[in-house]
Amino acid sequence: MDAVDAVELPPLLPEPAASELRLEAVMAALAEPLRMTIARKLLLHSDEFDHPCGWFGFDRPKSSLTHHFKVLREAGVIHQRQYGLERRSRLRVEDLNDRFPGLLDLVAATESR
Amino acid sequence: MDAVDAVELPPLLPEPAASELRLEAVMAALAEPLRMTIARKLLLHSDEFDHPCGWFGFDRPKSSLTHHFKVLREAGVIHQRQYGLERRSRLRVEDLNDRFPGLLDLVAATESR
Repeated sequence: MDAVDAVELPPLLPEPAASELRLEAVMAALAEPLRMTIARKLLLHSDEFDHPCGWFGFDRPKSSLTHHFKVLREAGVIHQRQYGLERRSRLRVEDLNDRFPGLLDLVAATESR
Repeated sequence: MDAVDAVELPPLLPEPAASELRLEAVMAALAEPLRMTIARKLLLHSDEFDHPCGWFGFDRPKSSLTHHFKVLREAGVIHQRQYGLERRSRLRVEDLNDRFPGLLDLVAATESR
């Protein structure tokens, strides 16, 4: 077991299984511009680590951000783990590519606004 | 000019130009299950003609259907023309394929419910 495997991650917050993902729900989550931006940023600029919401640099109230991340998680777009007081997020790239091939290409190609 | 060209179609109802289509708006329109079904049915079963809303066979109040078709038109998913008292719809296949390659493949692959 190497150093990376030895890291104990907090458990995932509740989320749908890959087999339960529905295109309508994923589209509803991504239809909101800030949430689309979150998904695109995780897709294009993220490394292998979970990202706290401060990483995104949004000038929005924390309660609003918490809500948007939760919508993304409940639709199956992101994983979230609780690190102490903070939730960190990661895009479900494999699950989304498996269930909805081409969707993340569309997200990547969307203009930032 | 052949017989098809000679047919005078009613003008298109107001809609965004292809260059104005936004992925978030298209996803918001398709995120509603009935609207997803409308788009999928037009994609998979439609011929070259505009379809009145009775063609879809939905058991919903007309006012509700009118609303959903309007949302699809205003997001740029369908064209609509007014034929007397009736509006008929057609999917904007070329515009959607041009702006959002792969999107209609996802719509086609969505399970009916």
